[in-house]
Amino acid sequence: MTENKRPLILVSNDDGITAPGIRTLIKVMNQLGDVVVVAPDSPQSGKGHAITLDSILECKPINIDDGEQIEYSCSGTPADCVKIAKNEILNRKPDLCVSGINHGSNASINVIYSGTMSAAIEAGIEGIPAIGFSLLDYSWKADFKPLEPFIKEIASKVLQNGLPDGVVLNVNFPKTENLKGIKVARQARANWIEEFDKRTNPQGKEYYWLTGKFINLDKGEDTDIAALDQDYVSVVPVKFDLTAHHFLQNLNAWF
Amino acid sequence: MTENKRPLILVSNDDGITAPGIRTLIKVMNQLGDVVVVAPDSPQSGKGHAITLDSILECKPINIDDGEQIEYSCSGTPADCVKIAKNEILNRKPDLCVSGINHGSNASINVIYSGTMSAAIEAGIEGIPAIGFSLLDYSWKADFKPLEPFIKEIASKVLQNGLPDGVVLNVNFPKTENLKGIKVARQARANWIEEFDKRTNPQGKEYYWLTGKFINLDKGEDTDIAALDQDYVSVVPVKFDLTAHHFLQNLNAWF
Repeated sequence: MTENKRPLILVSNDDGITAPGIRTLIKVMNQLGDVVVVAPDSPQSGKGHAITLDSILECKPINIDDGEQIEYSCSGTPADCVKIAKNEILNRKPDLCVSGINHGSNASINVIYSGTMSAAIEAGIEGIPAIGFSLLDYSWKADFKPLEPFIKEIASKVLQNGLPDGVVLNVNFPKTENLKGIKVARQARANWIEEFDKRTNPQGKEYYWLTGKFINLDKGEDTDIAALDQDYVSVVPVKFDLTAHHFLQNLNAWF
Repeated sequence: MTENKRPLILVSNDDGITAPGIRTLIKVMNQLGDVVVVAPDSPQSGKGHAITLDSILECKPINIDDGEQIEYSCSGTPADCVKIAKNEILNRKPDLCVSGINHGSNASINVIYSGTMSAAIEAGIEGIPAIGFSLLDYSWKADFKPLEPFIKEIASKVLQNGLPDGVVLNVNFPKTENLKGIKVARQARANWIEEFDKRTNPQGKEYYWLTGKFINLDKGEDTDIAALDQDYVSVVPVKFDLTAHHFLQNLNAWF
Protein backbone atom coordinates (compact mmCIF):
# COMPACT_ATOMS: atom_id res chain seq x y z
CA MET A 1 0.00 0.00 0.00
CA THR A 2 1.70 3.15 -1.22
CA GLU A 3 1.13 6.44 0.52
CA ASN A 4 -1.39 8.90 -0.91
CA LYS A 5 -3.17 6.02 -2.55
CA ARG A 6 -6.25 4.29 -1.25
CA PRO A 7 -5.69 0.57 -0.68
CA LEU A 8 -7.19 -1.84 -3.19
CA ILE A 9 -9.47 -4.34 -1.44
CA LEU A 10 -10.81 -7.54 -2.98
CA VAL A 11 -14.04 -8.91 -1.48
CA SER A 12 -15.44 -12.40 -1.95
CA ASN A 13 -17.57 -14.94 -0.06
CA ASP A 14 -19.18 -18.36 -0.37
CA ASP A 15 -22.86 -17.57 0.23
CA GLY A 16 -23.10 -15.81 -3.13
CA ILE A 17 -22.84 -12.20 -4.21
CA THR A 18 -26.36 -11.22 -3.10
CA ALA A 19 -26.06 -12.55 0.48
CA PRO A 20 -26.63 -10.02 3.29
CA GLY A 21 -23.25 -10.87 4.85
CA ILE A 22 -21.18 -9.74 1.87
CA ARG A 23 -23.25 -6.57 1.53
CA THR A 24 -22.21 -5.55 5.09
CA LEU A 25 -18.58 -6.43 4.40
CA ILE A 26 -18.59 -4.30 1.22
CA LYS A 27 -20.10 -1.36 3.10
CA VAL A 28 -17.31 -1.43 5.72
CA MET A 29 -14.55 -1.92 3.12
CA ASN A 30 -15.80 1.09 1.12
CA GLN A 31 -14.69 3.17 4.15
CA LEU A 32 -11.15 1.77 3.95
CA GLY A 33 -10.26 1.61 0.27
CA ASP A 34 -11.19 1.04 -3.36
CA VAL A 35 -13.29 -2.09 -3.39
CA VAL A 36 -13.63 -4.72 -6.10
CA VAL A 37 -16.04 -7.57 -5.42
CA VAL A 38 -15.61 -10.89 -7.22
CA ALA A 39 -17.99 -13.40 -5.71
CA PRO A 40 -19.87 -16.57 -6.68
CA ASP A 41 -23.19 -16.19 -8.49
CA SER A 42 -24.71 -18.93 -6.27
CA PRO A 43 -24.16 -20.36 -2.76
CA GLN A 44 -20.97 -22.41 -2.36
CA SER A 45 -21.19 -23.51 1.30
CA GLY A 46 -19.18 -26.57 2.24
CA LYS A 47 -17.17 -26.41 -0.95
CA GLY A 48 -13.84 -26.40 0.91
CA HIS A 49 -10.91 -25.34 -1.20
CA ALA A 50 -12.51 -26.52 -4.44
CA ILE A 51 -11.38 -25.15 -7.79
CA THR A 52 -13.03 -25.61 -11.16
CA LEU A 53 -10.92 -27.81 -13.45
CA ASP A 54 -13.56 -29.78 -15.35
CA SER A 55 -15.86 -26.98 -16.39
CA ILE A 56 -15.76 -23.43 -17.76
CA LEU A 57 -15.90 -20.25 -15.69
CA GLU A 58 -18.02 -17.23 -16.47
CA CYS A 59 -17.58 -13.82 -14.91
CA LYS A 60 -19.62 -10.69 -15.56
CA PRO A 61 -19.93 -7.14 -14.18
CA ILE A 62 -23.00 -6.67 -12.01
CA ASN A 63 -24.61 -3.81 -10.10
CA ILE A 64 -26.40 -4.81 -6.92
CA ASP A 65 -26.57 -1.73 -4.70
CA ASP A 66 -25.58 1.94 -4.92
CA GLY A 67 -22.20 1.57 -3.16
CA GLU A 68 -18.89 2.76 -4.63
CA GLN A 69 -17.55 -0.75 -5.21
CA ILE A 70 -17.11 -2.43 -8.58
CA GLU A 71 -18.66 -5.91 -8.70
CA TYR A 72 -18.33 -9.11 -10.72
CA SER A 73 -20.44 -12.22 -10.41
CA CYS A 74 -18.58 -15.45 -11.18
CA SER A 75 -19.80 -18.99 -11.90
CA GLY A 76 -17.00 -20.66 -9.88
CA THR A 77 -16.03 -21.41 -6.33
CA PRO A 78 -14.62 -18.84 -3.85
CA ALA A 79 -11.05 -19.95 -4.69
CA ASP A 80 -11.83 -19.56 -8.42
CA CYS A 81 -13.10 -16.02 -7.72
CA VAL A 82 -9.82 -14.98 -6.11
CA LYS A 83 -7.78 -16.54 -8.93
CA ILE A 84 -9.83 -14.87 -11.65
CA ALA A 85 -9.84 -11.53 -9.81
CA LYS A 86 -6.07 -11.51 -9.50
CA ASN A 87 -5.38 -12.67 -13.03
CA GLU A 88 -8.16 -11.23 -15.17
CA ILE A 89 -9.93 -8.40 -13.37
CA LEU A 90 -7.54 -6.42 -11.15
CA ASN A 91 -4.71 -4.47 -12.71
CA ARG A 92 -2.57 -4.67 -9.58
CA LYS A 93 -2.20 -6.98 -6.59
CA PRO A 94 -4.76 -6.06 -3.92
CA ASP A 95 -3.54 -4.76 -0.54
CA LEU A 96 -6.15 -6.86 1.23
CA CYS A 97 -8.62 -9.63 0.50
CA VAL A 98 -11.64 -10.13 2.76
CA SER A 99 -14.16 -12.94 2.52
CA GLY A 100 -17.60 -13.26 4.10
CA ILE A 101 -19.37 -12.37 6.24
CA ASN A 102 -20.30 -16.04 6.25
CA HIS A 103 -23.75 -17.01 7.48
CA GLY A 104 -22.63 -19.71 9.95
CA SER A 105 -19.53 -20.65 11.94
CA ASN A 106 -16.11 -21.26 10.44
CA ALA A 107 -14.50 -21.71 13.85
CA SER A 108 -12.56 -24.82 14.84
CA ILE A 109 -12.64 -27.71 12.34
CA ASN A 110 -15.18 -25.87 10.16
CA VAL A 111 -12.22 -23.99 8.64
CA ILE A 112 -11.43 -27.19 6.69
CA TYR A 113 -14.86 -27.31 4.98
CA SER A 114 -15.18 -23.56 4.55
CA GLY A 115 -15.63 -21.87 1.21
CA THR A 116 -15.32 -18.49 2.93
CA MET A 117 -11.90 -19.37 4.32
CA SER A 118 -10.82 -20.94 1.01
CA ALA A 119 -11.07 -17.50 -0.62
CA ALA A 120 -8.91 -16.01 2.16
CA ILE A 121 -6.42 -18.91 1.99
CA GLU A 122 -6.21 -18.69 -1.79
CA ALA A 123 -5.38 -14.98 -1.45
CA GLY A 124 -2.77 -15.86 1.19
CA ILE A 125 -1.16 -18.39 -1.16
CA GLU A 126 -0.94 -15.60 -3.73
CA GLY A 127 0.80 -13.36 -1.17
CA ILE A 128 -2.20 -11.11 -0.44
CA PRO A 129 -2.98 -10.33 3.24
CA ALA A 130 -6.38 -11.89 3.83
CA ILE A 131 -9.17 -12.30 6.37
CA GLY A 132 -12.28 -14.48 6.48
CA PHE A 133 -15.25 -13.25 8.56
CA SER A 134 -18.11 -15.43 9.80
CA LEU A 135 -21.10 -15.02 12.10
CA LEU A 136 -22.46 -17.91 14.15
CA ASP A 137 -25.97 -17.34 12.84
CA TYR A 138 -27.36 -19.10 9.76
CA SER A 139 -30.34 -16.75 9.49
CA TRP A 140 -30.52 -14.67 6.33
CA LYS A 141 -31.99 -11.96 8.60
CA ALA A 142 -29.09 -11.98 11.09
CA ASP A 143 -28.09 -8.54 12.39
CA PHE A 144 -24.62 -7.75 11.00
CA LYS A 145 -24.62 -4.13 12.20
CA PRO A 146 -22.87 -4.73 15.57
CA LEU A 147 -20.00 -6.48 13.74
CA GLU A 148 -19.06 -3.43 11.68
CA PRO A 149 -16.67 -1.66 14.10
CA PHE A 150 -14.81 -4.92 14.77
CA ILE A 151 -14.46 -5.69 11.08
CA LYS A 152 -13.18 -2.17 10.47
CA GLU A 153 -10.66 -2.48 13.30
CA ILE A 154 -9.32 -5.88 12.26
CA ALA A 155 -9.10 -4.98 8.57
CA SER A 156 -7.38 -1.67 9.40
CA LYS A 157 -4.78 -3.47 11.51
CA VAL A 158 -4.03 -5.88 8.66
CA LEU A 159 -3.75 -3.00 6.15
CA GLN A 160 -1.41 -1.25 8.58
CA ASN A 161 0.74 -4.18 9.76
CA GLY A 162 0.42 -6.74 6.97
CA LEU A 163 0.57 -10.44 7.84
CA PRO A 164 3.52 -12.84 7.81
CA ASP A 165 3.96 -14.90 4.64
CA GLY A 166 1.76 -17.97 4.82
CA VAL A 167 -0.68 -16.62 7.42
CA VAL A 168 -4.29 -15.42 7.03
CA LEU A 169 -6.90 -14.61 9.69
CA ASN A 170 -10.05 -16.55 10.53
CA VAL A 171 -12.46 -14.23 12.38
CA ASN A 172 -15.69 -15.55 13.91
CA PHE A 173 -18.44 -13.58 15.65
CA PRO A 174 -20.64 -15.13 18.34
CA LYS A 175 -24.41 -14.82 18.08
CA THR A 176 -24.97 -12.40 20.94
CA GLU A 177 -26.28 -8.93 21.67
CA ASN A 178 -23.33 -8.29 23.95
CA LEU A 179 -20.03 -8.51 22.03
CA LYS A 180 -17.32 -8.31 24.69
CA GLY A 181 -14.25 -7.67 22.52
CA ILE A 182 -11.63 -9.53 20.51
CA LYS A 183 -9.69 -12.64 21.58
CA VAL A 184 -6.78 -14.09 19.64
CA ALA A 185 -7.19 -17.87 19.81
CA ARG A 186 -6.11 -21.22 18.44
CA GLN A 187 -8.32 -23.62 16.47
CA ALA A 188 -10.21 -25.95 18.83
CA ARG A 189 -9.90 -29.72 18.19
CA ALA A 190 -13.39 -30.82 17.27
CA ASN A 191 -15.33 -32.88 14.79
CA TRP A 192 -18.81 -33.44 13.46
CA ILE A 193 -20.78 -36.50 14.42
CA GLU A 194 -22.66 -37.13 11.23
CA GLU A 195 -26.23 -38.24 11.20
CA PHE A 196 -27.25 -39.43 7.77
CA ASP A 197 -30.94 -39.01 7.13
CA LYS A 198 -31.82 -42.02 4.96
CA ARG A 199 -34.87 -41.65 2.74
CA THR A 200 -36.53 -43.33 -0.23
CA ASN A 201 -37.35 -41.43 -3.41
CA PRO A 202 -40.68 -41.77 -5.26
CA GLN A 203 -39.08 -44.46 -7.47
CA GLY A 204 -38.10 -46.54 -4.41
CA LYS A 205 -34.39 -45.69 -4.54
CA GLU A 206 -32.57 -44.97 -1.28
CA TYR A 207 -30.70 -41.71 -0.75
CA TYR A 208 -29.18 -39.71 2.10
CA TRP A 209 -29.09 -36.18 3.43
CA LEU A 210 -25.91 -35.32 5.32
CA THR A 211 -26.60 -33.73 8.72
CA GLY A 212 -24.59 -33.68 11.89
CA LYS A 213 -23.74 -32.31 15.29
CA PHE A 214 -20.62 -30.32 16.19
CA ILE A 215 -18.60 -31.88 19.02
CA ASN A 216 -15.89 -29.85 20.75
CA LEU A 217 -13.17 -32.25 21.94
CA ASP A 218 -10.99 -29.46 23.31
CA LYS A 219 -11.26 -28.14 26.88
CA GLY A 220 -8.61 -25.44 26.32
CA GLU A 221 -9.43 -21.90 27.44
CA ASP A 222 -7.31 -20.51 24.58
CA THR A 223 -9.44 -21.88 21.73
CA ASP A 224 -11.75 -20.09 19.30
CA ILE A 225 -14.73 -22.07 20.64
CA ALA A 226 -13.98 -20.96 24.23
CA ALA A 227 -13.72 -17.31 23.12
CA LEU A 228 -17.01 -17.49 21.19
CA ASP A 229 -18.76 -19.23 24.10
CA GLN A 230 -17.78 -16.24 26.24
CA ASP A 231 -19.21 -13.75 23.68
CA TYR A 232 -15.81 -12.69 22.32
CA VAL A 233 -14.91 -12.28 18.66
CA SER A 234 -12.33 -15.02 17.91
CA VAL A 235 -9.31 -14.29 15.69
CA VAL A 236 -7.27 -17.36 14.68
CA PRO A 237 -4.12 -16.97 12.59
CA VAL A 238 -4.38 -19.74 9.99
CA LYS A 239 -1.59 -21.22 7.88
CA PHE A 240 -1.60 -23.34 4.76
CA ASP A 241 1.68 -25.13 5.43
CA LEU A 242 -0.03 -28.25 6.73
CA THR A 243 3.23 -29.97 7.72
CA ALA A 244 2.97 -31.56 11.18
CA HIS A 245 6.48 -30.35 12.08
CA HIS A 246 6.25 -31.90 15.57
CA PHE A 247 6.04 -35.40 14.05
CA LEU A 248 8.82 -35.10 11.43
CA GLN A 249 11.55 -36.49 13.64
CA ASN A 250 9.59 -39.53 14.86
CA LEU A 251 8.42 -40.29 11.35
CA ASN A 252 12.00 -40.17 10.09
CA ALA A 253 12.85 -43.05 12.41
CA TRP A 254 10.28 -45.28 10.62
CA PHE A 255 12.18 -45.49 7.33
CA MET B 1 -6.28 -53.46 15.62
CA THR B 2 -6.90 -56.44 17.83
CA GLU B 3 -4.69 -59.49 17.60
CA ASN B 4 -5.88 -62.51 15.57
CA LYS B 5 -8.11 -60.21 13.57
CA ARG B 6 -7.31 -58.79 10.17
CA PRO B 7 -7.34 -55.01 10.14
CA LEU B 8 -10.29 -53.25 8.53
CA ILE B 9 -9.12 -50.93 5.76
CA LEU B 10 -11.24 -48.24 4.11
CA VAL B 11 -10.18 -47.20 0.59
CA SER B 12 -11.29 -44.08 -1.26
CA ASN B 13 -9.98 -41.66 -3.89
CA ASP B 14 -10.94 -38.63 -5.95
CA ASP B 15 -10.45 -39.89 -9.51
CA GLY B 16 -13.50 -42.16 -9.22
CA ILE B 17 -13.95 -45.80 -8.31
CA THR B 18 -12.94 -47.16 -11.74
CA ALA B 19 -9.60 -45.28 -11.95
CA PRO B 20 -6.46 -47.44 -12.38
CA GLY B 21 -4.86 -45.81 -9.32
CA ILE B 22 -7.47 -47.02 -6.85
CA ARG B 23 -7.42 -50.52 -8.39
CA THR B 24 -3.69 -50.80 -7.54
CA LEU B 25 -4.29 -49.47 -4.04
CA ILE B 26 -7.08 -52.02 -3.45
CA LYS B 27 -4.84 -54.85 -4.66
CA VAL B 28 -2.10 -53.94 -2.16
CA MET B 29 -4.56 -53.42 0.71
CA ASN B 30 -6.12 -56.85 0.11
CA GLN B 31 -2.74 -58.24 1.24
CA LEU B 32 -2.93 -56.34 4.53
CA GLY B 33 -6.51 -56.63 5.73
CA ASP B 34 -10.25 -56.73 5.04
CA VAL B 35 -10.92 -54.02 2.51
CA VAL B 36 -14.03 -51.89 2.02
CA VAL B 37 -13.97 -49.40 -0.83
CA VAL B 38 -16.25 -46.36 -0.74
CA ALA B 39 -15.31 -44.07 -3.58
CA PRO B 40 -16.91 -41.43 -5.82
CA ASP B 41 -18.83 -42.61 -8.88
CA SER B 42 -17.20 -39.85 -10.97
CA PRO B 43 -13.94 -37.85 -10.94
CA GLN B 44 -13.66 -35.26 -8.14
CA SER B 45 -10.26 -33.69 -8.84
CA GLY B 46 -9.70 -30.24 -7.40
CA LYS B 47 -12.70 -30.56 -5.11
CA GLY B 48 -10.63 -29.75 -2.01
CA HIS B 49 -12.36 -30.62 1.25
CA ALA B 50 -15.84 -30.21 -0.22
CA ILE B 51 -18.85 -31.87 1.39
CA THR B 52 -22.36 -32.17 -0.02
CA LEU B 53 -24.82 -30.03 1.92
CA ASP B 54 -27.19 -28.82 -0.79
CA SER B 55 -27.91 -32.08 -2.54
CA ILE B 56 -28.66 -35.73 -1.82
CA LEU B 57 -26.13 -38.56 -1.66
CA GLU B 58 -26.53 -41.96 -3.23
CA CYS B 59 -24.42 -44.98 -2.43
CA LYS B 60 -24.68 -48.46 -3.92
CA PRO B 61 -22.77 -51.76 -3.83
CA ILE B 62 -20.76 -52.38 -6.96
CA ASN B 63 -18.52 -55.15 -8.28
CA ILE B 64 -15.65 -54.00 -10.48
CA ASP B 65 -12.99 -56.70 -10.39
CA ASP B 66 -12.56 -60.16 -8.84
CA GLY B 67 -10.68 -58.99 -5.74
CA GLU B 68 -11.73 -59.83 -2.18
CA GLN B 69 -12.76 -56.28 -1.34
CA ILE B 70 -16.33 -55.06 -0.85
CA GLU B 71 -17.10 -51.93 -2.87
CA TYR B 72 -19.58 -49.06 -2.84
CA SER B 73 -19.91 -46.31 -5.41
CA CYS B 74 -21.07 -42.98 -3.98
CA SER B 75 -22.44 -39.84 -5.65
CA GLY B 76 -20.57 -37.46 -3.34
CA THR B 77 -17.10 -36.04 -2.78
CA PRO B 78 -14.16 -37.96 -1.24
CA ALA B 79 -14.94 -36.42 2.20
CA ASP B 80 -18.59 -37.49 1.81
CA CYS B 81 -17.41 -41.04 1.02
CA VAL B 82 -15.45 -41.28 4.27
CA LYS B 83 -18.35 -39.87 6.29
CA ILE B 84 -20.90 -42.22 4.76
CA ALA B 85 -18.53 -45.21 5.09
CA LYS B 86 -17.99 -44.59 8.77
CA ASN B 87 -21.62 -43.86 9.58
CA GLU B 88 -23.68 -46.04 7.26
CA ILE B 89 -21.54 -48.81 5.76
CA LEU B 90 -18.89 -50.03 8.22
CA ASN B 91 -19.94 -51.71 11.43
CA ARG B 92 -16.75 -50.70 13.22
CA LYS B 93 -14.15 -47.97 13.00
CA PRO B 94 -11.53 -48.86 10.38
CA ASP B 95 -7.93 -49.42 11.46
CA LEU B 96 -6.68 -47.53 8.43
CA CYS B 97 -8.01 -45.32 5.66
CA VAL B 98 -6.06 -44.98 2.41
CA SER B 99 -6.90 -42.68 -0.47
CA GLY B 100 -5.62 -42.67 -4.06
CA ILE B 101 -3.49 -43.51 -5.85
CA ASN B 102 -4.12 -40.08 -7.32
CA HIS B 103 -3.29 -39.52 -10.97
CA GLY B 104 -1.21 -36.35 -10.47
CA SER B 105 0.79 -34.61 -7.74
CA ASN B 106 -0.55 -33.70 -4.33
CA ALA B 107 2.82 -32.50 -3.11
CA SER B 108 3.43 -29.00 -1.74
CA ILE B 109 0.49 -26.56 -2.03
CA ASN B 110 -1.52 -29.10 -4.05
CA VAL B 111 -2.52 -30.67 -0.73
CA ILE B 112 -4.91 -27.71 -0.26
CA TYR B 113 -6.84 -28.41 -3.49
CA SER B 114 -6.67 -32.18 -3.23
CA GLY B 115 -9.73 -34.40 -3.12
CA THR B 116 -7.47 -37.39 -2.46
CA MET B 117 -6.02 -35.77 0.65
CA SER B 118 -9.46 -34.56 1.78
CA ALA B 119 -10.53 -38.21 2.19
CA ALA B 120 -7.42 -38.88 4.28
CA ILE B 121 -7.89 -35.69 6.31
CA GLU B 122 -11.58 -36.45 6.89
CA ALA B 123 -10.58 -39.87 8.23
CA GLY B 124 -7.94 -38.19 10.44
CA ILE B 125 -10.57 -35.83 11.85
CA GLU B 126 -12.65 -38.92 12.72
CA GLY B 127 -9.64 -40.43 14.53
CA ILE B 128 -8.76 -42.99 11.84
CA PRO B 129 -5.05 -43.34 10.87
CA ALA B 130 -4.95 -42.26 7.22
CA ILE B 131 -2.68 -41.94 4.19
CA GLY B 132 -3.13 -40.30 0.80
CA PHE B 133 -1.08 -41.65 -2.12
CA SER B 134 -0.38 -39.79 -5.38
CA LEU B 135 1.77 -40.34 -8.46
CA LEU B 136 3.23 -37.42 -10.42
CA ASP B 137 1.80 -38.74 -13.67
CA TYR B 138 -1.60 -37.71 -15.02
CA SER B 139 -1.69 -40.52 -17.58
CA TRP B 140 -4.47 -43.07 -17.17
CA LYS B 141 -1.89 -45.58 -18.41
CA ALA B 142 0.74 -44.74 -15.80
CA ASP B 143 2.62 -47.74 -14.41
CA PHE B 144 1.62 -48.16 -10.77
CA LYS B 145 3.38 -51.51 -10.33
CA PRO B 146 6.72 -50.14 -8.98
CA LEU B 147 4.80 -48.26 -6.27
CA GLU B 148 3.33 -51.38 -4.70
CA PRO B 149 6.16 -52.38 -2.29
CA PHE B 150 6.43 -48.78 -1.02
CA ILE B 151 2.68 -48.54 -0.46
CA LYS B 152 2.72 -51.84 1.38
CA GLU B 153 5.63 -50.73 3.58
CA ILE B 154 4.14 -47.35 4.48
CA ALA B 155 0.66 -48.75 5.16
CA SER B 156 2.12 -51.58 7.26
CA LYS B 157 4.07 -49.09 9.37
CA VAL B 158 0.93 -47.04 10.00
CA LEU B 159 -1.06 -50.18 10.93
CA GLN B 160 1.76 -51.16 13.27
CA ASN B 161 2.59 -47.78 14.86
CA GLY B 162 -0.59 -45.75 14.42
CA LEU B 163 -0.34 -41.99 13.94
CA PRO B 164 -0.56 -39.17 16.49
CA ASP B 165 -3.98 -37.57 16.91
CA GLY B 166 -4.44 -34.90 14.26
CA VAL B 167 -1.80 -36.21 11.83
CA VAL B 168 -2.23 -38.01 8.48
CA LEU B 169 0.35 -38.82 5.80
CA ASN B 170 0.66 -37.31 2.33
CA VAL B 171 2.72 -39.68 0.14
CA ASN B 172 3.80 -38.69 -3.37
CA PHE B 173 5.67 -40.80 -5.95
CA PRO B 174 7.92 -39.23 -8.56
CA LYS B 175 7.48 -40.18 -12.22
CA THR B 176 10.65 -42.20 -12.68
CA GLU B 177 11.83 -45.69 -13.51
CA ASN B 178 14.35 -45.51 -10.71
CA LEU B 179 12.64 -45.04 -7.32
CA LYS B 180 15.48 -44.41 -4.86
CA GLY B 181 13.64 -44.87 -1.56
CA ILE B 182 11.52 -42.93 0.93
CA LYS B 183 12.21 -39.43 2.29
CA VAL B 184 10.24 -37.83 5.12
CA ALA B 185 9.79 -34.19 4.14
CA ARG B 186 7.97 -30.94 4.83
CA GLN B 187 5.50 -29.24 2.48
CA ALA B 188 7.33 -26.92 0.07
CA ARG B 189 6.12 -23.29 -0.14
CA ALA B 190 4.81 -22.92 -3.65
CA ASN B 191 1.91 -21.61 -5.65
CA TRP B 192 0.28 -21.82 -9.05
CA ILE B 193 0.60 -19.00 -11.52
CA GLU B 194 -2.76 -19.16 -13.19
CA GLU B 195 -3.21 -18.66 -16.86
CA PHE B 196 -6.84 -18.19 -17.75
CA ASP B 197 -7.63 -19.29 -21.26
CA LYS B 198 -10.31 -16.80 -22.39
CA ARG B 199 -12.65 -18.00 -25.14
CA THR B 200 -15.93 -17.05 -26.74
CA ASN B 201 -18.82 -19.51 -26.98
CA PRO B 202 -20.91 -19.98 -30.16
CA GLN B 203 -23.41 -17.43 -28.78
CA GLY B 204 -20.66 -14.81 -28.41
CA LYS B 205 -20.41 -15.04 -24.61
CA GLU B 206 -16.96 -14.98 -23.01
CA TYR B 207 -15.81 -17.76 -20.73
CA TYR B 208 -12.58 -19.06 -19.18
CA TRP B 209 -10.71 -22.30 -18.68
CA LEU B 210 -8.50 -22.34 -15.59
CA THR B 211 -4.96 -23.50 -16.34
CA GLY B 212 -1.70 -22.75 -14.61
CA LYS B 213 1.91 -23.43 -13.88
CA PHE B 214 3.34 -24.74 -10.61
CA ILE B 215 6.00 -22.47 -9.11
CA ASN B 216 8.22 -23.75 -6.29
CA LEU B 217 9.18 -20.79 -4.08
CA ASP B 218 11.13 -22.96 -1.64
CA LYS B 219 14.84 -23.76 -2.01
CA GLY B 220 14.88 -26.06 1.06
CA GLU B 221 16.51 -29.46 0.67
CA ASP B 222 14.06 -30.91 3.21
CA THR B 223 10.87 -30.35 1.17
CA ASP B 224 8.64 -32.82 -0.64
CA ILE B 225 9.44 -31.18 -3.96
CA ALA B 226 13.19 -31.60 -3.40
CA ALA B 227 12.71 -35.29 -2.50
CA LEU B 228 10.58 -35.92 -5.60
CA ASP B 229 13.06 -34.06 -7.83
CA GLN B 230 15.70 -36.52 -6.63
CA ASP B 231 13.49 -39.57 -7.43
CA TYR B 232 12.54 -40.25 -3.81
CA VAL B 233 9.05 -41.04 -2.53
CA SER B 234 8.04 -38.08 -0.33
CA VAL B 235 6.16 -38.63 2.94
CA VAL B 236 4.81 -35.46 4.59
CA PRO B 237 3.01 -35.65 7.94
CA VAL B 238 -0.01 -33.37 7.50
CA LYS B 239 -2.15 -31.80 10.22
CA PHE B 240 -5.57 -30.20 10.17
CA ASP B 241 -4.99 -27.83 13.08
CA LEU B 242 -4.33 -24.86 10.80
CA THR B 243 -3.42 -22.51 13.67
CA ALA B 244 -0.27 -20.50 12.88
CA HIS B 245 1.01 -20.97 16.43
CA HIS B 246 4.18 -18.98 15.68
CA PHE B 247 2.13 -15.84 15.09
CA LEU B 248 -0.24 -16.06 18.09
CA GLN B 249 1.90 -13.94 20.38
CA ASN B 250 2.50 -11.13 17.89
CA LEU B 251 -1.15 -11.07 16.93
CA ASN B 252 -2.14 -10.80 20.57
CA ALA B 253 -0.27 -7.51 20.79
CA TRP B 254 -2.53 -6.01 18.09
CA PHE B 255 -5.70 -5.96 20.20
